[in-house]
This record gives sequence, C-alpha cells and structure tokens, in this order.
Amino acid sequence: MREDDEASGRVTLAAVAKEAGVSMPTVSKVLNGRSDVSRATRAKVEKLLDLHGYRRRVQPAARYPLIEIVFHELESVWAMELIRGVENVAKENRATVVLTESGTRHTPDPDWLPGVLQRRPLGVVLVFSSLPEDIKRQLRAAAIPFVVIDPAGDPDPDVPSVGSANWAGGLAATRHLTERGHRRIAIITGPNDMLCSLARLDGYRSAMAMAGLEVDPRLTRFGDFHVQGGFERAMELLEGPDRPTAIFAGSDLQALGVLEAARVKGLRVPEDLSVVGYDDVPLAQWSSPPLTTVHQPLRHMAEEASRMLLRPDDPGASAQRIELATHLVVRQSTAVLKD
Amino acid sequence: MREDDEASGRVTLAAVAKEAGVSMPTVSKVLNGRSDVSRATRAKVEKLLDLHGYRRRVQPAARYPLIEIVFHELESVWAMELIRGVENVAKENRATVVLTESGTRHTPDPDWLPGVLQRRPLGVVLVFSSLPEDIKRQLRAAAIPFVVIDPAGDPDPDVPSVGSANWAGGLAATRHLTERGHRRIAIITGPNDMLCSLARLDGYRSAMAMAGLEVDPRLTRFGDFHVQGGFERAMELLEGPDRPTAIFAGSDLQALGVLEAARVKGLRVPEDLSVVGYDDVPLAQWSSPPLTTVHQPLRHMAEEASRMLLRPDDPGASAQRIELATHLVVRQSTAVLKD
Repeated sequence: MREDDEASGRVTLAAVAKEAGVSMPTVSKVLNGRSDVSRATRAKVEKLLDLHGYRRRVQPAARYPLIEIVFHELESVWAMELIRGVENVAKENRATVVLTESGTRHTPDPDWLPGVLQRRPLGVVLVFSSLPEDIKRQLRAAAIPFVVIDPAGDPDPDVPSVGSANWAGGLAATRHLTERGHRRIAIITGPNDMLCSLARLDGYRSAMAMAGLEVDPRLTRFGDFHVQGGFERAMELLEGPDRPTAIFAGSDLQALGVLEAARVKGLRVPEDLSVVGYDDVPLAQWSSPPLTTVHQPLRHMAEEASRMLLRPDDPGASAQRIELATHLVVRQSTAVLKD
Repeated sequence: MREDDEASGRVTLAAVAKEAGVSMPTVSKVLNGRSDVSRATRAKVEKLLDLHGYRRRVQPAARYPLIEIVFHELESVWAMELIRGVENVAKENRATVVLTESGTRHTPDPDWLPGVLQRRPLGVVLVFSSLPEDIKRQLRAAAIPFVVIDPAGDPDPDVPSVGSANWAGGLAATRHLTERGHRRIAIITGPNDMLCSLARLDGYRSAMAMAGLEVDPRLTRFGDFHVQGGFERAMELLEGPDRPTAIFAGSDLQALGVLEAARVKGLRVPEDLSVVGYDDVPLAQWSSPPLTTVHQPLRHMAEEASRMLLRPDDPGASAQRIELATHLVVRQSTAVLKD
C-alpha cells in the first residue's frame, strides 16, 4: 500500500474520532475488535467508518498466516473437497487452515467474530453461509476479506461468491439420456426453494424440449439431497407400469438412494434403469455400478474462493460472482435404452 | 499450577542456563522457539531441559484457544470423521480447530514447527504420523501436548496414542459369518507390514478355529485399503469353481470394490455372496446393499485424543495408550448361507 493511502487512512480515523466524539485509541479499539468499548460507541464508530469508506491499512503479512473456512455443517460429503481446495491454496501461500463449524445455523456463531478478529487471518471462506450486516461491517473495518462458496446459486449481491453452472449441468445430464434413446426420464431435484434446484430443473426441461420430448409432470420430484430422500422418491417413481427408464438425481447421495431402490425393486442398473447423479464427490466412482454424474468442481470452487481472498484489494471488484463450469462424467450407471 | 511448581520451574531454568553457559533470556528464546539462537546452543539447552525434566509452566488459557490436527493425507474417507471428533471437543472448550496436511510424508513438514510454536495451540492431534525426536523435544519444551491417533496399532511407546481393537474386530466379523453357516470365508486384509492387518487376520483365524473350520490359505489376501485393490483381490477370489461364499474386507472402501466385483461376476449380494467391511465410515450405510461392517469409532477416537490433550498435566501418564472397542454393525450385505 502506498504512503498517500496510509496518510488518507490516518486522516479518516481522526475525522471519525472527532465526529464520534471519542478518542483515537477508542477508534483503534473498535478496529481491533476489543471488547472494552460500549456497544453504542462501537456502533457509532463503525457506522462512521463505513460512511467515510474507511479501509483499514493492510497489515504486513504475518509470518505464519491463516486462512479461515467456516462451515455450517461439516457432515456433508462436500466438506472434505472444499477443505482440500482451501488447503491447496493455503499451501501455495505457506498459510495454515483454520476450521470453524457454525452448528446448525447458516450464520457463524456470535463467539466467532472476536476470535477471527484476534486471529487476523488472510481471509475467510464461508461455505453456504450468509453474514449479518454487523459482522460484514466489522470484518471490512478490520480489512479481513471474505468470500462465500454458494453452490445453491442464491448469493448476497453485496458479498463476493463462487458458484457453479447449475442450468448447464441439468441440461448436460438430460441430453446424455435423451441421446441414448430414453424418453421417459424422471428428475429428482433439490428443495423447491433453492435456486440451484430450479436451474437444474429448467436445464432438464430445455434438454427434453430440444429432443422433442414432453415433460411428464408425474416424473418431476423435489427432494432433499440425502440418500434416504433419493430412495423414497425413486420408490415412488418406480411404482406402477409406466415407470421411467432413467432417473436424473439431484446429488450423488440421492443417486445412491436410487440405486438402492432399483436393487429392492429387482431392477438392474444400467440394464433396466439408467441413473445420473450430481456433484461427482469421490464416492460417485466407488458405487456399484460407478455413477455417471455431473461434476461440480467443489475443490476448484474452494481454490477460486481462497484466491479471491488473497488478491490485491480492488474495491470495484468487491462484490464479484464467479460461476465455474460443470461437466458430465460418464461412468457405468447409464446405458442406451433397449427396445 | 501451584506457586511451588512455578518456583521449581524457575530454579530449573536458572540451573539450565548456568550449566549450558548461556543467559536466562537465551533459555527463554529456546523455550519460545525463537530462531535467533544457534542450532548448537538450542540443542545443548534442549538436552539439559530434558535432563532436568523441565516442564514449561502452563500458560493461562488463551482467550480464543486453538486445537491443531495434523494429517499426512486429507484424501482419506476417515479424515472428516476425525475432524468432526476434534471439532466436537474444540466446541466444548470454546476452541477453534487448525488443520495441517503434511503432504505425502508421515511426519509434519519442517515449516510446521515454527508455526505451531507461534500459534501455541492447547495441543496437537497427529493422525497416523510419527514425530522426529527433535520436534517432540521442542513441543515438550514449549508445553504443547500431543497425541497420536494410530488406528494401525503400531504406536511409538514414547507418545500418547489412541487406537482401536483390531483383533476383536476381525473376530467379530468372522464369527458373524460362521454363525450364518458360511464355511468358505475369504479375508482381504490390509498391507502385510501393518500391525492392524495382522491383528485382524489373527482374529479371523481364531473365529475360524472356534467354529471348527480350517483356514484355506488360498482365501487369505493382503491388499491396500482402497476400492480398486478390493475389486482386484475379489476378482481373483471369485475366479474358479470353489469360490468363497463370504468375503471379509479390510476396509469399507475395499468392500465397495468387492461389491463391484460381485456385480461384474453376476453375483447378487447377499444372496450369492456375503460381504463384511471394516471402519463403518458414513458411506458404508449408503452402498447398495448397505454394508455389514466393523465399526471403528473414528470420531470417538479423535474426541478421546483431543481430551487427552486437555487433561491436567500428569507426567506419569505421558505415554499412555488407549484402545477403544470396535463392534459389528449388521446391515444388508450378509445373509445366512443357503444350502
């Protein structure tokens, strides 16, 4: 950072102190996330820092820097892929990864903020979480950048984020099936209040239309992303005489549930039923048969998010969104429809 | 810590400084892992600290304490379970988890030590890693406790560790099969240079003997713990007319490879072939059919290791080993042998 930037930073701090009617040390305390400042004073100073567009002078890099990743749920099969991505970028930058789980909530625990302000990481990667306004403000005031990994495709416009191409993924999966002669193709997508579910469903519909096929609404199911949900939806879909010959699932876990439903129904995959998954988490290649699935580049998304944190500060780019491409990985759970 | 302990600590430091012919501040530098001490001086001081049985006075707990977990390989399906366990204990103690991957080596990267000395975590959980003597010495001098999670059952006697009961696991898996009428039971165990592989194999042999069955050496295979290895060993075992009716695999991943081999050979599981896995990682319940497997309490092992770090210092217990029990989880991949 150049000298004149530093100077202007100092001017801003003095102006803020004066306008807030507090001392410079008090402003410093607010910037450093110290707890010995009253809530009212903190709020006033933060608001003024925000108004004046103050960006904290970037600290010289710590000798043993940290990158922080915040999950709301570590259970997910995604978690490891995302940690790997952050770890890869951390390694390149000789940094160490700090891991926080925010429990069942989609926003970090209130205890998290003072800790992160004390740890001063190079930045914070938030997985599928949103941040309350006051936390965003405090992180910005402390010049700790943050990026959201948001595969659901519903980003806060105010926060930089990394997602992936859900519509194109839905299209590719469905085209793969229509090109293999399937006409009765079912889709089990995610919850109906998530944009990623709708985008994939629209991709499916477009691929069906491109193939001149009508969409049978009885073959569309919304669900969760878990094995049991996939099993239950597939059992419904495979009921009755006019069953689908192919099912496009909303996640690899759902697809495993579909495989199990096929086994229970005495159907062989892919001979009697083709199955496509979504995500391409490692277990997709280990199922029996190995899953044809849409590769969602989770590790790459985490790398991209981590790199966004480390880029030289560019205020114009502060709320960018990157969507990485998805692509179909063909394995053994899909086959050409037999007459 | 009591006053007299502190006092005796000071006496030791003074004695060490005198004996090493250096100043007290130099001894302090060594204790704090500072780099501005010559290698020779550091070695001399550390050796004397060791000789005098010096244990650094425990610091008052940091406000935002860290627990550090070191992996040599994050790829493993175990990793997430172990992280969860450490995270659980971290949460109870309002601590945050730091994650390090040491790359392909089984010992941490040389860069890791200065970082950990600076971060001053409550302790370090090492997964399946060993520590060179000088790193152990420096961690001890800095009063940073460490525990190894060692499911392979081959612990350094000098380091506290947590493992699990491999022999009993092998026995339980095999008894489950003999009790269901199987006589031709194959085992694919781990690499033949790992104690856990041998312990499980001995458990298998004892269960066979208890059932009055002879062990056919052609039905014993050593392998790795991966899907492809399980697939290849199972393809060999299922060759020829006198094939086994049950296979006990060395890991759940191996067992998935066995399921795939059965599918390729046109054998139904469990009707034509019973399969038992090992580990009970989450994917064991998602396979088709869901796997009967030996539960290795990975999460619990990580919790136990983390708790060992946080226990009040007890020099007598400094090299303890805890083995947690394993137990069989019966799902749908095993059945009574049909005549």
